[in-house]
Amino acid sequence: MSNTRIEHDTMGEVAVPNEAYWGAQTQRSRDNFKIGGETLPLPLINAMALVKKAAAITNAGLGRIKQEQADLIVQAADDVLAGKLAGQFPLVVWQTGSGTQSNMNMNEVIANRANELAGTGLAAYQPVHPNDHVNHAQSTNDSFPTAIHVAAAIEINRLLIPAVKTLRDTLDAKAKEFANIVKIGRTHLQDATPLTLGQEFSGYVNQLDHALVRLNDALRDLYELPLGGTAVGTGLNSHPEYAVKAAAQLAELSGLPFVTAPNKFEALAARDACVYASGALKTLAGSLNKIANDVRWLASGPRCGLGEIRIPENEPGSSIMPGKVNPTQAEALTMVCCQVFGNDVTINMAGASGNFELNVYMPVIAYNLLQSVRLLGDACNSFNEHCAVGIEAVPEKIDYFLHHSLMLVTALNRKIGYENAAKVAKTAYKNDKSLRETAIELGLLTGEEFDELVKPEEMVAPK
Amino acid sequence: MSNTRIEHDTMGEVAVPNEAYWGAQTQRSRDNFKIGGETLPLPLINAMALVKKAAAITNAGLGRIKQEQADLIVQAADDVLAGKLAGQFPLVVWQTGSGTQSNMNMNEVIANRANELAGTGLAAYQPVHPNDHVNHAQSTNDSFPTAIHVAAAIEINRLLIPAVKTLRDTLDAKAKEFANIVKIGRTHLQDATPLTLGQEFSGYVNQLDHALVRLNDALRDLYELPLGGTAVGTGLNSHPEYAVKAAAQLAELSGLPFVTAPNKFEALAARDACVYASGALKTLAGSLNKIANDVRWLASGPRCGLGEIRIPENEPGSSIMPGKVNPTQAEALTMVCCQVFGNDVTINMAGASGNFELNVYMPVIAYNLLQSVRLLGDACNSFNEHCAVGIEAVPEKIDYFLHHSLMLVTALNRKIGYENAAKVAKTAYKNDKSLRETAIELGLLTGEEFDELVKPEEMVAPK
Amino acid sequence: MSNTRIEHDTMGEVAVPNEAYWGAQTQRSRDNFKIGGETLPLPLINAMALVKKAAAITNAGLGRIKQEQADLIVQAADDVLAGKLAGQFPLVVWQTGSGTQSNMNMNEVIANRANELAGTGLAAYQPVHPNDHVNHAQSTNDSFPTAIHVAAAIEINRLLIPAVKTLRDTLDAKAKEFANIVKIGRTHLQDATPLTLGQEFSGYVNQLDHALVRLNDALRDLYELPLGGTAVGTGLNSHPEYAVKAAAQLAELSGLPFVTAPNKFEALAARDACVYASGALKTLAGSLNKIANDVRWLASGPRCGLGEIRIPENEPGSSIMPGKVNPTQAEALTMVCCQVFGNDVTINMAGASGNFELNVYMPVIAYNLLQSVRLLGDACNSFNEHCAVGIEAVPEKIDYFLHHSLMLVTALNRKIGYENAAKVAKTAYKNDKSLRETAIELGLLTGEEFDELVKPEEMVAPK
Amino acid sequence: MSNTRIEHDTMGEVAVPNEAYWGAQTQRSRDNFKIGGETLPLPLINAMALVKKAAAITNAGLGRIKQEQADLIVQAADDVLAGKLAGQFPLVVWQTGSGTQSNMNMNEVIANRANELAGTGLAAYQPVHPNDHVNHAQSTNDSFPTAIHVAAAIEINRLLIPAVKTLRDTLDAKAKEFANIVKIGRTHLQDATPLTLGQEFSGYVNQLDHALVRLNDALRDLYELPLGGTAVGTGLNSHPEYAVKAAAQLAELSGLPFVTAPNKFEALAARDACVYASGALKTLAGSLNKIANDVRWLASGPRCGLGEIRIPENEPGSSIMPGKVNPTQAEALTMVCCQVFGNDVTINMAGASGNFELNVYMPVIAYNLLQSVRLLGDACNSFNEHCAVGIEAVPEKIDYFLHHSLMLVTALNRKIGYENAAKVAKTAYKNDKSLRETAIELGLLTGEEFDELVKPEEMVAPK
Repeated sequence: MSNTRIEHDTMGEVAVPNEAYWGAQTQRSRDNFKIGGETLPLPLINAMALVKKAAAITNAGLGRIKQEQADLIVQAADDVLAGKLAGQFPLVVWQTGSGTQSNMNMNEVIANRANELAGTGLAAYQPVHPNDHVNHAQSTNDSFPTAIHVAAAIEINRLLIPAVKTLRDTLDAKAKEFANIVKIGRTHLQDATPLTLGQEFSGYVNQLDHALVRLNDALRDLYELPLGGTAVGTGLNSHPEYAVKAAAQLAELSGLPFVTAPNKFEALAARDACVYASGALKTLAGSLNKIANDVRWLASGPRCGLGEIRIPENEPGSSIMPGKVNPTQAEALTMVCCQVFGNDVTINMAGASGNFELNVYMPVIAYNLLQSVRLLGDACNSFNEHCAVGIEAVPEKIDYFLHHSLMLVTALNRKIGYENAAKVAKTAYKNDKSLRETAIELGLLTGEEFDELVKPEEMVAPK
Repeated sequence: MSNTRIEHDTMGEVAVPNEAYWGAQTQRSRDNFKIGGETLPLPLINAMALVKKAAAITNAGLGRIKQEQADLIVQAADDVLAGKLAGQFPLVVWQTGSGTQSNMNMNEVIANRANELAGTGLAAYQPVHPNDHVNHAQSTNDSFPTAIHVAAAIEINRLLIPAVKTLRDTLDAKAKEFANIVKIGRTHLQDATPLTLGQEFSGYVNQLDHALVRLNDALRDLYELPLGGTAVGTGLNSHPEYAVKAAAQLAELSGLPFVTAPNKFEALAARDACVYASGALKTLAGSLNKIANDVRWLASGPRCGLGEIRIPENEPGSSIMPGKVNPTQAEALTMVCCQVFGNDVTINMAGASGNFELNVYMPVIAYNLLQSVRLLGDACNSFNEHCAVGIEAVPEKIDYFLHHSLMLVTALNRKIGYENAAKVAKTAYKNDKSLRETAIELGLLTGEEFDELVKPEEMVAPK
Repeated sequence: MSNTRIEHDTMGEVAVPNEAYWGAQTQRSRDNFKIGGETLPLPLINAMALVKKAAAITNAGLGRIKQEQADLIVQAADDVLAGKLAGQFPLVVWQTGSGTQSNMNMNEVIANRANELAGTGLAAYQPVHPNDHVNHAQSTNDSFPTAIHVAAAIEINRLLIPAVKTLRDTLDAKAKEFANIVKIGRTHLQDATPLTLGQEFSGYVNQLDHALVRLNDALRDLYELPLGGTAVGTGLNSHPEYAVKAAAQLAELSGLPFVTAPNKFEALAARDACVYASGALKTLAGSLNKIANDVRWLASGPRCGLGEIRIPENEPGSSIMPGKVNPTQAEALTMVCCQVFGNDVTINMAGASGNFELNVYMPVIAYNLLQSVRLLGDACNSFNEHCAVGIEAVPEKIDYFLHHSLMLVTALNRKIGYENAAKVAKTAYKNDKSLRETAIELGLLTGEEFDELVKPEEMVAPK
Repeated sequence: MSNTRIEHDTMGEVAVPNEAYWGAQTQRSRDNFKIGGETLPLPLINAMALVKKAAAITNAGLGRIKQEQADLIVQAADDVLAGKLAGQFPLVVWQTGSGTQSNMNMNEVIANRANELAGTGLAAYQPVHPNDHVNHAQSTNDSFPTAIHVAAAIEINRLLIPAVKTLRDTLDAKAKEFANIVKIGRTHLQDATPLTLGQEFSGYVNQLDHALVRLNDALRDLYELPLGGTAVGTGLNSHPEYAVKAAAQLAELSGLPFVTAPNKFEALAARDACVYASGALKTLAGSLNKIANDVRWLASGPRCGLGEIRIPENEPGSSIMPGKVNPTQAEALTMVCCQVFGNDVTINMAGASGNFELNVYMPVIAYNLLQSVRLLGDACNSFNEHCAVGIEAVPEKIDYFLHHSLMLVTALNRKIGYENAAKVAKTAYKNDKSLRETAIELGLLTGEEFDELVKPEEMVAPK
């Protein structure tokens, strides 16, 4: 074959595409794992490159590889991070459970790129060797889960937390804007005592405030890195100072407070930090699901729903029926929430299934965790920009409900007594009339007296 | 201790309460597994007794135990089935994963009761011995999962299918009752083209019709019994005709078409039939969740919701606010649905975790499967009796929405053209008026012409 | 901008890339839903094209669109099916929950391609209009879920069932090959009575036999098509014969027995057939998880595990440690199983969340259902080809365990009595010796007598 | 009926059993919700009593009810807490989603008991009235979720944290005891480089150390109490100081740092703190699942498994086969883990399904959350007492594996070079011999040289 070069590994020859920076082990995985099409997510690829970079710097500093080799590795890793080697990481999630093949993919690509930079070219494997130098003092078993932690921590910080904060701030601004709009409350989907629309929105804000705290709990655990455990947690083949220094290097490179995990046996054999992080994400999903549902119900209509708020019209709803604004952003967001709940179950089962010194469900954990982070972050941003910022109250509808509600009758107790108040309510319900007109018809109060007594705005706080 | 008797097993002495029909192995489990309080569900206890009865009859027929022993076992098993030995099955779900301790509990109780009937009394263990006779030709490994299949099949037939059918019939009667009530449709929670209330309910009926077919799929697999596989599926220590005959005996005793499983290795090592049955149950839960949600939303109000139907008031909603009817039956039903979805995940993980010749997650599978069956059955009955049968249409509200909707404007196209129709709708929406008055105001149609054209009842079928 | 053309919809102007076959509505979705990167799976795109083709043929046959228009639509749809318009379906899963935007994407692409074929070109929208002709007698609300059913049914038939059958046949061949290899059984991970390796594998075969029956249950429900329900299930704007004929057309085009759903209100408002299909898939996942776990445990070692079977070495395990064959195919398969379990939860929650006339979680249901089908199919094929076909028994290890096991002592009962047999076992265990040598040492039997009595091959069936 | 008394509510008469302390509303729930048999868990009943007590003290202190009434309520609540009114709380989980019926059950029982103490007797409803005094300044909507938080926080502190700590300490003691036992590592179930058995156990310890931190995260959120929000979060009908003071009172009564929730709209409408707490519980379940699996695999055998550790024999395994110790405690624990994973899904879906001012899935959330806490706590204690404390290393088996492993060959590299080392390993594997004898046979090393070089104990740390 003219378009391939022959590489060798301990099992023999492998034909690798000429232009590929990857080598034999990557190629074998491509051939052996034709399952689905989901490749490892980009944040994980980048985190792996970052780990290689940090390891190289650390190993050179400890005198375990040459500075020249480290420099080449750093350059090549930077090329990965800059996106210059996109397309060189073709492996799917559904491979070996340790991620070895993807780790070797990274080792091979960085080595080949490094050697290209050094002038020896692809498949030369010197001066930089994928195993001896790029993977130095590492095993997939510690470097791959390290990359998972790094990727998740970076994405939560880069994408998710800002997205949640932005949505939170938008809802907080709405809560303040709507602070004086008194509306009917609803419990059990049934009319209840009033509150302000601002109070209703303040609940959403508080849900997201809690979410931010919980994401920090998750980060605390993700910041602990397995790197330095090597094959089984003992750190065999690594310098005694390597684990601490490599984590510090990753902290410096990323700007995040990564530290070496206090126990490397846990760090390799369990993926509990990921399981727990997914617990924070699914809690956030639950919050967002509630918020999105409220928004689309409050905006339901235009004529035959609740219609207390108006949301932006982003697409033509119907060419002939104005006012039909499908809550498409809420729909996208709630679909994302369903996905996150399912991903959580996948992560739980995968995380619970480790044996002895290694959990071999790492790619599927990484895939689901990073998908949840990405989808929640993007969906918060989209919902914020295309829906939340444009939410408007519909005061006439809100007032209509508030004043047609029978719940306000409680305010009459003081004046006409419980029995008469109940009579007003029952008569109004039976005749499908308002409390006000019923009270007047029954001769119990004048309209002025009624208006004096029934002030929903005084029912929205303790007294 | 004066209130206990001393029994022996191969590990030594065990103090058993004097009055207990159980023996040493049950007692050890009580002492060693103080976890939670959930005992094995009654249908499973009864199914175990039925299995013992069928095994005894079969073994006697094959000459493997004496007829006298079989008769005593049958009598004792009948006492269990009659509830005369309630309280004798104290073991919790959280025991050995094979259910051995509960199987021994049943063996001990039946043996002791049999010997009591024979006059030798508790702890005599002759003429009927728990292992040699009650458990003859059985291992927990085949008899316990057999009891799970039997229990689930009996309960699905006894409770769940009739409950689903009853609810289906009630909803079908409502669909027919509401056949001519034209109402606004809703998609995306937004007003859409009309349909009849009866059509809406017919969808629920069809969901339950499908559920009944799916439950039969589940039963087909549950009818295959592991009995005869003994310890590892080979049938060691059982008569070659035992498996087929014992299944036939169980079929005769239960009136259900049980057969011996075609492969006993699958029948012991997998609990796939339970996993699949739970798949049918969760699908039913999804259907019921949709139905219950629709009902409570359609009944929302009394003033500030949709209010197109009225549901029975079973409890005082509010002493002063008439019409607030909390949809409590829908709430109970949707909580049950959540439980069934969670139980399904438990069953999935447990069912996937077998190793080699045995799945050792059987008690937890049985507990969740039977809870799902019970809760769905009871909740269907409760929802039917206390909610569905009493659902009434609220024609005035339905009409109000239908005729205030802007969706009907499409009917004007033929007469005044698309452009003018759109103008009517847009103007009506902007001014918050009806299509009819807007069309008249715009001078496009008379009221009579409008009424002639806009006939929602003609929009509810293909044409 | 020189690289875009301006299209119009009822909300105004939209800039669409010049080369795009899609139009305004697709473009708006691209702009408004920047969430994740998961586009609709290809089988769904193809199924949508197939639905458009079937609808066009049916509508022309019923005289509702011109034959010339239908011919152009059919040609364009065939181009989609042939992959000629790859890249024209850029929309993500996380859009409107009805899939409207993807339905419009298909309508726009087919219309533009049809008009290109007709010579009027992109953005001409005549002679073929996306709404009036491509979407004729359809709403997204019926055509999109129809496409989901069609896509899932096609993929289950095309990919999954053959893959399961192939793996089943491989395991069945192994079961026959291993029919006479007697080995130790294991329950609770503890040594148990013997069986043959073939019997063990026959359990796996039977699990997959059941799976195939269950997949047919799922297909039965997926074959029912919502098409013809249009916007809310009433079939408004469709010809009375359309639903039946369009389903028949889809059956003819696909070769699968599609029929029109008996109740279109269920067919639009519920996605129960998908929920149920996922129930069959998760049951299969449970079976495969058990099989894959057994295989990797039986192959564990090479020295410090069970090692009763040998699996193919597909990648270098270790350059210096021969025999370390990581069970990577089993790892990929069990990760897929975790994914399928999670996807099932997503589908359950999405399926349970419909309201009134429509379920608006359709894209997420489709995405997860089709991913589960794809992954299970591909993983079965990969596991079969790269692992199952190469499984070999390791007779020396199997024999070693079998003859070192203490479980065989039961065979001595008949000759030397229970008490002596127990003494042999206990002594052998205490001294870490074999039963044979212990029995001889204790003077209870000669070696010849022992060999005569202890024949594991006679313990693998009822007697 | 002579055995009932007639009570009245706004809907009319209800027959209540004479001896019952409950009243009309409880009775109606018993009649209307015959679903399953799961009553509210005892910790929740007790927490509800504690809330009533705290509310009464607070309301009296604020002058809203009389001191005499408060004293009676406190006495009655103490009777509940002392278990004197067991049997008076018969309502099932599957009731109204707000828990109103159980809240009224508590109000009725406390009122009737208070009045019994006051001498007016059952059904007198004075001087203490269920609504006016026991429920004063409360709605179910705030007091019921408060009780859920209180119950969960108490049980996590009382049962779960001590149980996790105890198990952690046991495993830590084992880790220290086994600190010098070098053993083969296993990754992918395949032999890997060595570590000590103590290191392996230290990973478990670290998992539980993390779990304790995570439980504190959960507690932080559970300590925020909804009390004072009353019906919709506004605090209508409560004293402005009530919320803060009542939370402080609950803190004093319980000894736990409860505070009033910063936002009562979130506190009523969301149950996010429960969803998040369940996230911590499921993470713990994942950790325990891994630990239990390792323990039972390491103890597998006695002859045909790994057998590196010995676990206590708590029940007769087999009367004739000594050494078959079924890992029943591990089985119970892993079944509990499956249950917790399923409960988490139930809680997620329930928690995500609130609408507007109230989540009406509270009983099912409480039931699952408290079951998870209870089961994890009890199972940790049981596993600790009946399994972990009795774990013993089996040094001969550990040594056998370690020295038969081929993994140690890497230690020969320095002396005989990589090529020769590989030759030793490959030859040993092929001939099924040890590295030592193979190296000698190949003439590469003497036995003394081999022993000098191959020191596994030097391979368990960085160097």
